[in-house]
Amino acid sequence: MRLAALAGGVGAAKLLSGLVRILPPEDISVIVNTGDDFRWLGLQICPDLDTITYTLAGLDNPATGWGVRDETFRCLERLDSLGCDTWFQVGDRDLATHIYRTHALQSGATLSAATDAIARAHGIQSRILPMTDTPAPTIVHTTEGSLAFQDYFVRRQCSPEVRGFSFQGIENAAPAPGVLEAIRDADVVVVCPSNPYISIGPILAVPGLRAALAVSPATVIAVTPIVAGAAIKGPAGAMMRQLGCAVSPATVAGLYRDFLDIFVLDLQDEGVSTQIAGPALRVCMADTIMNTMESRVSLAQFLLDISA
Amino acid sequence: MRLAALAGGVGAAKLLSGLVRILPPEDISVIVNTGDDFRWLGLQICPDLDTITYTLAGLDNPATGWGVRDETFRCLERLDSLGCDTWFQVGDRDLATHIYRTHALQSGATLSAATDAIARAHGIQSRILPMTDTPAPTIVHTTEGSLAFQDYFVRRQCSPEVRGFSFQGIENAAPAPGVLEAIRDADVVVVCPSNPYISIGPILAVPGLRAALAVSPATVIAVTPIVAGAAIKGPAGAMMRQLGCAVSPATVAGLYRDFLDIFVLDLQDEGVSTQIAGPALRVCMADTIMNTMESRVSLAQFLLDISA
Repeated sequence: MRLAALAGGVGAAKLLSGLVRILPPEDISVIVNTGDDFRWLGLQICPDLDTITYTLAGLDNPATGWGVRDETFRCLERLDSLGCDTWFQVGDRDLATHIYRTHALQSGATLSAATDAIARAHGIQSRILPMTDTPAPTIVHTTEGSLAFQDYFVRRQCSPEVRGFSFQGIENAAPAPGVLEAIRDADVVVVCPSNPYISIGPILAVPGLRAALAVSPATVIAVTPIVAGAAIKGPAGAMMRQLGCAVSPATVAGLYRDFLDIFVLDLQDEGVSTQIAGPALRVCMADTIMNTMESRVSLAQFLLDISA
Repeated sequence: MRLAALAGGVGAAKLLSGLVRILPPEDISVIVNTGDDFRWLGLQICPDLDTITYTLAGLDNPATGWGVRDETFRCLERLDSLGCDTWFQVGDRDLATHIYRTHALQSGATLSAATDAIARAHGIQSRILPMTDTPAPTIVHTTEGSLAFQDYFVRRQCSPEVRGFSFQGIENAAPAPGVLEAIRDADVVVVCPSNPYISIGPILAVPGLRAALAVSPATVIAVTPIVAGAAIKGPAGAMMRQLGCAVSPATVAGLYRDFLDIFVLDLQDEGVSTQIAGPALRVCMADTIMNTMESRVSLAQFLLDISA
């Protein structure tokens, strides 16, 4: 069974770490959001690609949800004393990824090629694919102006009220090599429990991608990122409220309705089921909180079972 | 008393750490070799500027002679596992300097401005001046071909036999802002005990610099880097031999003869004195081995005394 996943950061990484324990890892292709990517002191940082890579490599830091485990910040401390902007916390081990990638890109490699080389160096057998090789940074439009994503997310701690999103240059961005093929050839496509606006949204905005999902013969399953009226992690709930939507899995399902076959609700939200299910959309219930590896594997197995 | 110094790496840094304990640091300008500068994984590395900066900041690593004290190599370990070329040992704390400088240069700063900002962030009151803001990399011509300096020095461990040197693009390199002024306005110019071919040689090759030394009213004093028939550190002795010269302070004095007023020989080389002294060149004897701070301060004081 071949599986493609659309992935943001931590929630996606958790589910993927379950999936690679059930399916042969080489049968999994992960299409990753690059809207969060940014330059920091000249280094190219790709937060979601790194979270997925580190998690599949077993290097992820469960305490923080970002970066590498067993990390130190000695370079950052000195950058701070040199007067640099150090609001983005880059550890010494994490830094190697950014230096490697930046050098590869400067030497003419595509982001796909650099990502693939990093994954292979970590012994990862799944394919990790950036959604596109073209920079298409997420802009968060707020009542305090339009902000680059990391500016909104890290520096401003998601405090400005959101009015909308755009993905700069996305109209000229092609899906990265392998992305459309992964969707076309998959038996199952999993939309991971990531923020629908700023993690899955940029992926769906890549020209041709949404259409590829709609025509794919694969069973397309989304796992809710909203449980019991709140996001499991991050600003998705606040964003829904600020955009005038219900903080509900139904809002998420609405965003994916044109290509979705199955929506997986959390057991805590049984009441929402009837708001989502329809002639073309099946709803299944599962424990979607993945705090342990056991629960990740259980959810992964559940997804494969319902897709069959 | 205003002092200008021509400096390579470790030997120069030792003498300077003595000088700043006697003279007001702000009266000292250090003109530093940049011929060793190179790019490593996209980062701009300036070994001699960093050795001087770290030493004057009290951050130098006396155990290695390069890099920062209390150093770790966690980023480098991961770069190694990513398959990068890690023959140049960059520590986590040291890395901050290279990231800062590379970003500053990419943002349009000159090397002078970046160097000055780094020095000020470290609380250094002396002026640290790159010899030029224009890249002019040292090429070592050997019996095994022409090698970039770090390739010869670090990767090949100075093993190929040297036939000569060139400084690529030096003919179009102007002295960095402040360099000619520092020489013109100095009461004393000290040529530090650094390799005359690959540390002082590139500085002297910057157009206008040698002439500025020749016409400067300052007393120009060189401290020998050769003691008892060998270089105190590094390949200077081997280079002299391979170039068919005597491994002698006299060879060094010959290279500086057109602008030198005083040559400081080590006490161990009293016999060489008559080979060097002449109508326009005075020879003084001192303990030039600077293994302790006390001996660095003594030598510094000696230089000031003989220049008066």
